[in-house]
This record gives sequence, C-alpha cells and structure tokens, in this order.
Amino acid sequence: MDKIFIGLDFGSDSVRALLVDAHGNEIAEAVRNYPRWSRKMFCDAARYCFRQHPRDYLETMTEVIRAVLQGQDADRVAGIGVDTTGSTPCAVDDHGVPLAMHERFSSNPNAMFILWKDHTAMAEEQSINHTASRWKIDHRMYSGGNYSCEWFWSKLLYVLRNDQAVREAACSFVEHCDWISGVLTGNTRPEKIFRSRCAAGHKAMWHEMWGGLPDEDFLTAVDPLLAGWRDKLYRNTVTAGTRVGTLAPEWAAELGLRDDTAVGAGAIDCHVGAVGAGITPGEMVKVLGTSTCDILAAGDPHACIEGICGQVDGSVLPGLTGFEAGQAAFGDIYNWFKNFLEYAGQVDLSRLERDAAALPIGAVGVTALDWFNGRRTPFANSHLTGLIANLNLGTTPAMVYRALIESTVMGSKAIFDHFQHSGIAIKGITAVGGISVKSEFIMQMLADVFNMPIKVAKTSQSCALGAAMIGAAAAGEYADLNTASRLMNSGFRKIYTPQPENYEAYQKVYERRKALGAVWEKHICQDL
Amino acid sequence: MDKIFIGLDFGSDSVRALLVDAHGNEIAEAVRNYPRWSRKMFCDAARYCFRQHPRDYLETMTEVIRAVLQGQDADRVAGIGVDTTGSTPCAVDDHGVPLAMHERFSSNPNAMFILWKDHTAMAEEQSINHTASRWKIDHRMYSGGNYSCEWFWSKLLYVLRNDQAVREAACSFVEHCDWISGVLTGNTRPEKIFRSRCAAGHKAMWHEMWGGLPDEDFLTAVDPLLAGWRDKLYRNTVTAGTRVGTLAPEWAAELGLRDDTAVGAGAIDCHVGAVGAGITPGEMVKVLGTSTCDILAAGDPHACIEGICGQVDGSVLPGLTGFEAGQAAFGDIYNWFKNFLEYAGQVDLSRLERDAAALPIGAVGVTALDWFNGRRTPFANSHLTGLIANLNLGTTPAMVYRALIESTVMGSKAIFDHFQHSGIAIKGITAVGGISVKSEFIMQMLADVFNMPIKVAKTSQSCALGAAMIGAAAAGEYADLNTASRLMNSGFRKIYTPQPENYEAYQKVYERRKALGAVWEKHICQDL
Repeated sequence: MDKIFIGLDFGSDSVRALLVDAHGNEIAEAVRNYPRWSRKMFCDAARYCFRQHPRDYLETMTEVIRAVLQGQDADRVAGIGVDTTGSTPCAVDDHGVPLAMHERFSSNPNAMFILWKDHTAMAEEQSINHTASRWKIDHRMYSGGNYSCEWFWSKLLYVLRNDQAVREAACSFVEHCDWISGVLTGNTRPEKIFRSRCAAGHKAMWHEMWGGLPDEDFLTAVDPLLAGWRDKLYRNTVTAGTRVGTLAPEWAAELGLRDDTAVGAGAIDCHVGAVGAGITPGEMVKVLGTSTCDILAAGDPHACIEGICGQVDGSVLPGLTGFEAGQAAFGDIYNWFKNFLEYAGQVDLSRLERDAAALPIGAVGVTALDWFNGRRTPFANSHLTGLIANLNLGTTPAMVYRALIESTVMGSKAIFDHFQHSGIAIKGITAVGGISVKSEFIMQMLADVFNMPIKVAKTSQSCALGAAMIGAAAAGEYADLNTASRLMNSGFRKIYTPQPENYEAYQKVYERRKALGAVWEKHICQDL
Repeated sequence: MDKIFIGLDFGSDSVRALLVDAHGNEIAEAVRNYPRWSRKMFCDAARYCFRQHPRDYLETMTEVIRAVLQGQDADRVAGIGVDTTGSTPCAVDDHGVPLAMHERFSSNPNAMFILWKDHTAMAEEQSINHTASRWKIDHRMYSGGNYSCEWFWSKLLYVLRNDQAVREAACSFVEHCDWISGVLTGNTRPEKIFRSRCAAGHKAMWHEMWGGLPDEDFLTAVDPLLAGWRDKLYRNTVTAGTRVGTLAPEWAAELGLRDDTAVGAGAIDCHVGAVGAGITPGEMVKVLGTSTCDILAAGDPHACIEGICGQVDGSVLPGLTGFEAGQAAFGDIYNWFKNFLEYAGQVDLSRLERDAAALPIGAVGVTALDWFNGRRTPFANSHLTGLIANLNLGTTPAMVYRALIESTVMGSKAIFDHFQHSGIAIKGITAVGGISVKSEFIMQMLADVFNMPIKVAKTSQSCALGAAMIGAAAAGEYADLNTASRLMNSGFRKIYTPQPENYEAYQKVYERRKALGAVWEKHICQDL
C-alpha cells in the first residue's frame, strides 16, 4: 500500500486537512471554522484586538482529521505536516500548555493565541524600534529595518506589560505552528519543544549571526520586564521538513492513526504555500489575495536586503535563504472600490473589470497608489495612504478601477525590481491565491508588466499541500523537503505569456507611478 | 404710470426676458431655448466646437419679449438692457450683419457666433501667448498673464486661418452683447456699433494704457493674417449703463414697444449678474453654479493683480475697476461624483450631502484638489487635474464627497486670499447661482472658511435683473448704473454667519490643501 500524508493548514478563520499521496495527488479534504472565533469571542475589532482560543484549534483539528479520513485506510497515513498563521504566539505554563487551557485563564484573551493581525502591541512596537535603532547591532536588519506590532516580541511584551496575572503564570511563549507539532508529538515543554526557524527568524529576530534571539542586554534595554525571557524561550531552531517526532499514543488513538506516524516541524502558512506551489531557487511564489505574500528562496545564505522582512536561512527550503515580501492590500483595494460604488446600488465586479479591460493601458492618465493599507514591502511604512490622481470631469469608474488594478500590479513590480536591484535574481514567477484563478485580466497584466511568464499553480490549496509535503519529508518518504516539493507538486493550470508591446506601454505607467509615489511619500503624505 | 424695464439675458442655452419696475420688483419673465442649438446643430462636442446661429438669438429674443409683455402695458417700457455670454464673437459684413445671415454662409459654423466655451482655437492661443510673452509690453497683464483659446483674438485668428471664404467676406467681428444692442438700435455697422468695455477689456486685451486694442505690430507678429484687423475693429469702448440709442422703428413695431425706448450698451453676463446682485465697491459677488464666477469692483483704476483675468476700469460699474475670477469647476465636481457613483445605481445627492455633513471637518483626512477642469483663478492653468488623496480601506463615499466639497470651498478661499494678498480688500460677499439657494451646508462652509458673513441675493435672475438695471440707467430713470443697482436690487434672502470655532478647524484643512496643491502642481501633475 502506498503511503499517504496529511497536510494541516491552520488559517485565520478555519483549519483544513488535505490528504495527499506521494505524487501530490489530492485525495480528500476537510475544513472546519473555529467555533469561538466565528462567534467573535475574545476579540475587539475596533481595537484591532484578535485572539484565538487554543481549544478552537484542538477541537477543529480533531474534526478535520477524522473527516478527511472518512472512507480511507488510515493505516496508510505515514506523516503529518503543519502550517499556521504567524506570528501568532501564546503564553504557556511549564508544561507548554497555553494558559487559557487552565480554568483560571479560560476567558482571558491575554492567555490565548494572539493572532498575526492583532495590533494591540503598538506601544511595544515603538519601544522595540526605539532601542533597536540605537543598538550597536540592528537586530531588525533581516526583518526589513522596522519591527512590527504584529510580531512575536511586541506581543510578548504587550502581555507582560498589561497583564500581571499572565506575566506571573507564564513560563514561556510558543508560536502556534510549533505548539501544534508539539501537541501532536506529546512534546510541548518549553525547554524541549521544537521551534521552527521560519517563525523565529521572520518574526522574533532570531538569527545565527548573533547566536539566536537578541541578547539579554538588548531585551532588558527595551524593557526591564523582558529580563530572563530569552532563557525561557529557545536557542535552537529547526528548518522546514524536519521530523520532530511521531504521534503521541493518545493522539494516535484519538485520531485513529498509527502511532509511528511522523510529524514535521511546523511553519508559517505563506512559506509552506510556496513549498506547495513547487518553489525552486530564484522562483518567486506570489500569493495573490486580499493582500499579497511574495516568497523567494535564493542560494546566498548571507544575503541581507534592505527593506525586506524575514531573510532566514532555511525558512522556506533547507539550504536556501527565504525572503518574505508582500503588499498590504491587493484584492482588498478592488473590494474597497466595489463597496464604495455600492453606496448607490449593487456592483458586479466582473462588469467593472470588463469595462476597465476595454480601456487603454494607463487608464487614460488616471494614476493611483496602492498604499490603501500602508506599504509592506519594500520598506514597510504603515503610515502611507492611497491616492487617486489626474482626475477630470470625464473620469469614469472604469478608468479609476483600471488605475487601481494598475496600481496594485505596479506595487508588485516595485517589489520585483527591489529584489532584482538588490542582486537577488528572480528567474520565474508562480502565482497562487484567489486572484490567480479569478482574474485573467490581472494575471495577464502581471505577466506584461513583469515581462515574464506567470505560471498559475494547479493546486488551490498550496498551503495544505505544502504541509503534506512536510509530512512526507518528515516520514522519510523523500530525502528532504526540496525533493518532496519537486515530486509532489501538481504543476500548473495555466501560464500567462507576456506581450512585449504591452510591456513598453506599462513601463510608462510604472515610471509615472514611481514619480507620484516618491513625491507623495516624501512631501505630503506624512503631513496630511 | 411708472416706467418699467426689460432685462434680456442671453445664456448658453436660452434667452430670458425679465420685466422689472423702477424698484427692482420682478413683474414677469419668459424663457426660450435656442432652437438650432438645442438640436445640436453646427456643434461638435468631441472637438469642443460650439457655434450658435444668429437667427437663434433673433427669433428667441422676439418671442421672449412678446411673451413677457403678455397682459402688460407695453407703453410703460422705457428701457432695455442686454447681457450675453462672452467672449462670443462673430464675423460680420460691412453692415455689421453676421455672415451666417447670408444664404452663402447660412450653414458655415465659422460664419456664426463662436460660443465662449468653444476650444477650437487652441493653436491660436499658443501663437498669441508665444508672441505676447516676448513682446516689449505684455498685453496679457490685465488678463491674468495667459491668453485663452476661449477669447476674442484666438477665435478671430482661428477663423482667418481656417476659413478663406469667411476671411475674405468678413469686414469686422462683433461680440454677441454688442451685436444685440446694435440690432435693437439699428446701428450695427462696424465703424459705428458701440463696443462694450466689459467684453473688450476682459477678452480682447483692450486697455487705455496702450491706447485700446494691442497695436498693429504686435498683431502682425502673432500672425501676418491679422494685418489691418485692428482698424477693422474699434478704438473706443463704452461702460455698462451707457445709453447706445433707442429702439429702431422696425424693432419697435415688431415687438410692440415705443420707438423711444432706450437701449443700454451690452455687457457680459457674470458682470451684469454682479450688478443685479447689488455689487458695491469691495463686495465680491460669487456666482456659484457648475463653475464659479467671482466678480469684484474696486476703487483703484490702476490696479493690476497677477493671475486675475480681466481688470478693466468700468467693466462692472462705471468708475470702478472690475475684476473677474472664478473656479473652472464647482458644482460640476459634485455632479461628476454623483454620476461616478451612479455606475451602480441611482444616487440622491442630498442624502450624500447629509452623510458628508455628519462627518467632522477635514473629512477624516481625505483631501482633494478641485482642479477637475483645470484652474481658472488664480493663475489659469488648464493642464492641472483633480486629485483625491489620503485614501484607505475605510474611506467611504461620504468622506470623499465631503473632501470634494471642502476642495471647492478651499479653491474659493484661494481666490479670496489672492485678492487680499494683492491689496484688494474684500469687504463683503454676496452669493447668487444655483448652489447659493440649494445647499445650506456648502454656504455655511463658505461663511466659516472665509470667516465672513455670506449674503444670498433674493433674486434668482441676477443677470436679467442687472440687464434691466442697465435698461433703467440707459433710459435715464437713474443718474447712473451705480444708483440703479443700489435702488433696484432686491436684497437678500438669507445671510450665513461664520462660526469662529469652525474657522480654526478649516484653516488646518486649507493649509493641508495648499501644501498638496503646491506639490501636485510643481512636481507631478505636468509629467503624468
């Protein structure tokens, strides 16, 4: 009997299990929404406070694994891989149990997982950047030069500062992806649990160059409350595809799986999605959705590019430096415009796109900037805003919509160029995510603007597929994750070929956008 | 029996007759659309070619005068005043008859009146500006520093260059307002017809400083085709309120009026409207409609302000220098946004205004520039375009609408400030036009931003009322037009009082808009 593998993909709202064979064929899938989260418990959207209860993860994980195994021979399952959102850390006790699992903290949001998009740690972001910018070594150099409130240390410090009970009870903090693998293998104790380099390097300023996490001096300079925390966390990390153990007997029984099922080290979703999309050295995988995530894995282990967050050896594939870039809004801008027009009535976005596509390149001069949600890459700046320029009394919604689409594509091009100019060659582009399958117009525009073919991955569940590849690598089915990714990826559903004459026309739009962006950023935006 | 007066107001689409007594009481009115114009004859909107047939004027004028006299004692009519759009010139024969009145030219658009908004003379605008900028004296100094394709010399030269038959048949050119007064008095011969200083000074670079029209050397330097044309035009002009004669017997018979009815010199509509609104020295009259026209009459006859078009002694009231400023789009921007949203369905602009008014001053940071139709004043620049800035994913239509309204009001404030900084004190503001009666929100905002009460004139037909005042002055009912304007104006329907605390808040918005405008104009707009 051929072996099969489970990819467990914990998204923002739900968890998905995908059952895959050794050739990457997708056999079955199951999805469950987190029950407390879907009732908006423990959250306060107005404050950008987003917390998830650990029981949400455990309950739904059990359900999806059981569901995906319905009618299958569970004994064939040889490995499980896990990906989650990140940075999504949680305070744990000395057994590695999230504090919210204890009765005393069961409804305390600070004792739960703090979801990636939570912004409650704004003040802590400031403290960290303040100290980091004055320190002898800038620990943010591999994180784009600016530490975010969405990342590990900001959130940890927020809890220490704001919740004495949790502070006193917490023995460590764990990332969601590490905790899930730890739970499945029965190994969650802080001093033993495996920490994924992917989460650590991108969001916790872990780097081999300074021996792991930032040193004690730095941390206590940020805030004396951080004293001793470095030692409560970790020194070592593991790269993607590493086997961290086998299923704990009680989980094997609970799930109906063999107790020699291998479990891989957890990792963050967009990185795992890049693996699932068949990433190779120099190939950029673009996850095109409401925002974008652009993942690149390149050969040079010492690369350090200004303005790009998360440059860590082995964060995507072992032996390669993983880079994470992205736009803070992409499809969200299209939806914004749809909702905007819907002040007047229903809007059919595909009609709007048809009308926009019928216009010439350059949207009749209307020019927009895609910073409606700030800028993520290059050079993160959350204070930047969007702009629609060159309007006159003849400007139509289709012109503005085309300008908005062009603005998002030019934002992608700016990331692309930044890599190229920094000496990191991009040899190809693979796209996944909703927009890659929904809009031929936008995909063709990307190909034209990049002057490079854009391949759309066949799988629509690249994260879960990547997690299954991690499971296969952990199970020893393949020598390493690189091999698993090469042999289990399912190829492309479509390839968009650039039209050179359009490239020339779009170059003018790009130059226009660049000039507008430079002036807007430099002269005005901050003052308004 | 008290005397009564007819004001004839030729607008872009229709002519209106208003019957008024010596106290300014409005007795009756009648309106007719131009028949050929309303069938879009002789026009090509795509080329911005807008021509009007002289028969449209004569036929509808006859109809409205007869209609307005229905049931009235026509013998009481002692004077007629005329205003028209401008610059709206036409080629005429040696009797002052528009060429299009001849069978041979009856359907030749170049033999008709070239409406103010016609832009066919773009190349001629360039030629004139090219020469003027190098000439020993800049004849554009009282016209804002930049000659427009909408004005007299551009249009005349366009016809000479582009239509040999008309060029050879034409003996002179007349402005619409001068021709109507000439027709009514039976005095249209080019060497005798009265030329209004209002039309001449604003649009034909006529000024006493250089002895009337620009000299022959200048004109032939612009184009040798202009040789001899100065002499075919005029040397002298008359100010508003001057009596140019009495009704020609055949017109008296045709209209059922006494043949001793006085006829006043014609003038351009917005200037006459200011008279009708009761303009006094230092009082700015704002005509608030799709665009704005801001008229100011001040004491200094030698004033010359950079960037303000049309500074002519006696163009509004005798003895005062008239200034014409304005915004190229005002209400048009609101209608643009309404039409924009109507891509999705019907929009109720008053609902949108209510939603906008409910927002705080500053539109939650959204900032717009009102240059959707270029900028007219200060410093005309038709290449400028509109802009909506500081957008994010939470920006609503109401925020953008409020930003657009604020942008138009700040554009008004920029004109106001330019006058003040140039040493021309503005002592008060009177508003007329559609928006002055339709939107309390916008009127209050104007009062707050200007920090000055804004009076809304009671009359809704200030141009026709002003024309009737001209008729009364011409008839000798009052010593001069100043007196007629004082005693015949109908006062105010409402006064908006500024709220000082709002002024402070709007000042910040104004500074923001100014910074944005400066950078947009200087760095980007031209390049896009």
